[in-house]
Amino acid sequence: MKFSSPIIQAPMAGGGDTPALVSAVCNGGGLGFIGAAYLAPVQIAGAAHAVREQTDEPFGINLFAPSPAPERPENLAAALRNVAPFFAEMGLPFPSLPDGGGYAFEDQLAAVLDSGASFFSFTFGLLPEKSVQAIKDRGLYLMGTASTVDEAEALEALGVDAVIAQGSEAGGHRATFDPRAAPDLIGTMALVPQIIDAVKVPVIASGGIMDGRGIKAALALGAAAVQMGTAFLTCDEAGVPENYKRAILQARENDTRITRAFSGRPARGIVNRFMNEVGEEDILPFPLQNALTRPLRTAAAKQGRAEFLSLWAGQGLRLARRGPARELVARLTAEIGQV
Amino acid sequence: MKFSSPIIQAPMAGGGDTPALVSAVCNGGGLGFIGAAYLAPVQIAGAAHAVREQTDEPFGINLFAPSPAPERPENLAAALRNVAPFFAEMGLPFPSLPDGGGYAFEDQLAAVLDSGASFFSFTFGLLPEKSVQAIKDRGLYLMGTASTVDEAEALEALGVDAVIAQGSEAGGHRATFDPRAAPDLIGTMALVPQIIDAVKVPVIASGGIMDGRGIKAALALGAAAVQMGTAFLTCDEAGVPENYKRAILQARENDTRITRAFSGRPARGIVNRFMNEVGEEDILPFPLQNALTRPLRTAAAKQGRAEFLSLWAGQGLRLARRGPARELVARLTAEIGQV
Repeated sequence: MKFSSPIIQAPMAGGGDTPALVSAVCNGGGLGFIGAAYLAPVQIAGAAHAVREQTDEPFGINLFAPSPAPERPENLAAALRNVAPFFAEMGLPFPSLPDGGGYAFEDQLAAVLDSGASFFSFTFGLLPEKSVQAIKDRGLYLMGTASTVDEAEALEALGVDAVIAQGSEAGGHRATFDPRAAPDLIGTMALVPQIIDAVKVPVIASGGIMDGRGIKAALALGAAAVQMGTAFLTCDEAGVPENYKRAILQARENDTRITRAFSGRPARGIVNRFMNEVGEEDILPFPLQNALTRPLRTAAAKQGRAEFLSLWAGQGLRLARRGPARELVARLTAEIGQV
Repeated sequence: MKFSSPIIQAPMAGGGDTPALVSAVCNGGGLGFIGAAYLAPVQIAGAAHAVREQTDEPFGINLFAPSPAPERPENLAAALRNVAPFFAEMGLPFPSLPDGGGYAFEDQLAAVLDSGASFFSFTFGLLPEKSVQAIKDRGLYLMGTASTVDEAEALEALGVDAVIAQGSEAGGHRATFDPRAAPDLIGTMALVPQIIDAVKVPVIASGGIMDGRGIKAALALGAAAVQMGTAFLTCDEAGVPENYKRAILQARENDTRITRAFSGRPARGIVNRFMNEVGEEDILPFPLQNALTRPLRTAAAKQGRAEFLSLWAGQGLRLARRGPARELVARLTAEIGQV
């Protein structure tokens, strides 16, 4: 067990986990993570540099596991038509097939290895063995994400140092290895002990944990630590639009749904107009749908229109609070100290 | 807080909670419950009598909240055709519209009030105020079941003594008040603290709790007690077919799904042939679908064919163990004593 505190701030690819947030978590005694999946190698280096300038504590970086380059999708025309009305409404040109965007995993990982990060986590599957070796050679602590026991066992066989168990409550992308399969939605309370019984490495609980009660519960289940995302999204330092934070603070526990509409991969977010009107048909496979809808989300963020944003959030919404991240970590630490 | 132990055996309408199981739980120090929703008043009296013969400890009885008598469904012909092939396969006559079966709630409740039970719980909605008054006049401890914060608040306003918070992991019927609505599936880890913050009465956690770790976790969340169903279904005393128990003991955490195929109300069970082949279309509303499929399930139980049984179970399946109920309660009690 290498965690000095059980509090891990979940990586939130997409801008939530600014260097200010990550470093504030680290300085408060937690473990901050940069969600770097959508960042170019030079951006990863820049974000890590910014974190290191603001903290001397260890921090982590997260990437998506590499996936094969998508083929030209058969449902391209339908998928473009499906989102076109929203592009028109926002004054954007008719959408076209994006190139998928993204950066080569090997190049991203090389940037991570040179970044000064002490922890590396990944999601969406397994890593090539040579990547695992490179990570271990550099002494990083390696964490993979599982949504089922089978996935946890595969991660352990790959050689991870710890497994992150993602319960159904979790916000954002499902870790599910196969995005074409129905997402396995096992609640945190059921998933964590079953994964703990199946693997020998430490297990980190995630999904629906928002305060000291949740942390203590996860530790009682046998988890070594917890990963919390939504609780950090409403922190002052979180780099998401103000109306995204407001949506979280006003939402109820049953205002989220799993959708593929934004990225092509199942992810949990607060239900909004885009989710309702785009639906779950005529969606491009990940990462094409994500690249397709990005211009819309960028424009919506600029105009403060939450109806077109991917409002990733977990089911613990009523427990979200505003404030500086350091205060949140201090409060959580005090709450779990009262065991 | 009236619970001498935090361990409550969930009512399991359908025969799982035999008097032998209920009394063994009570004698072991837990709180046993008779799931009496499908029982005639005389059967309720009989089951309670059998429990009282085997224990002097307090026990509980559960009923479904009353719902309006169903109208003749528009999709009747399609619903009959949908299940007919399975009736034929089992050598049963072509199915016909059942009368809905069931017994008047008032008559069932009268039997409960005379049964010697100390606890009464209900699900699927609210009770008439005169029923609440009658229950309180007789001094029974009243518990209602909620799957959302709104439902918990409605139960508190009705005057319950405690709220059972049913997380998404739970097996069997969803407590959801409105069966036509999509079932709100909030994980136990997220649901329990949000309900606790919203109501003043004690909250009982249910969903995915299978061992001492789960109980300790629920107590850490702030729950006053836990309700466990699946863990008791594989006890020697549980009155379900042997192949149902075997299905639980062999299943993985992701082998369940929510279905309306058996009863017309959403419920979580182990996926089997009936669920896969009947699908979620052309289903009668509850309780008609339940009455419609009962002959099939009765025949399947006799012939030992789990493919047509409703294999209600939660998501903690890998943690299920065989053994006497009293041993299970003793083990759980020992595990939570090690806090």
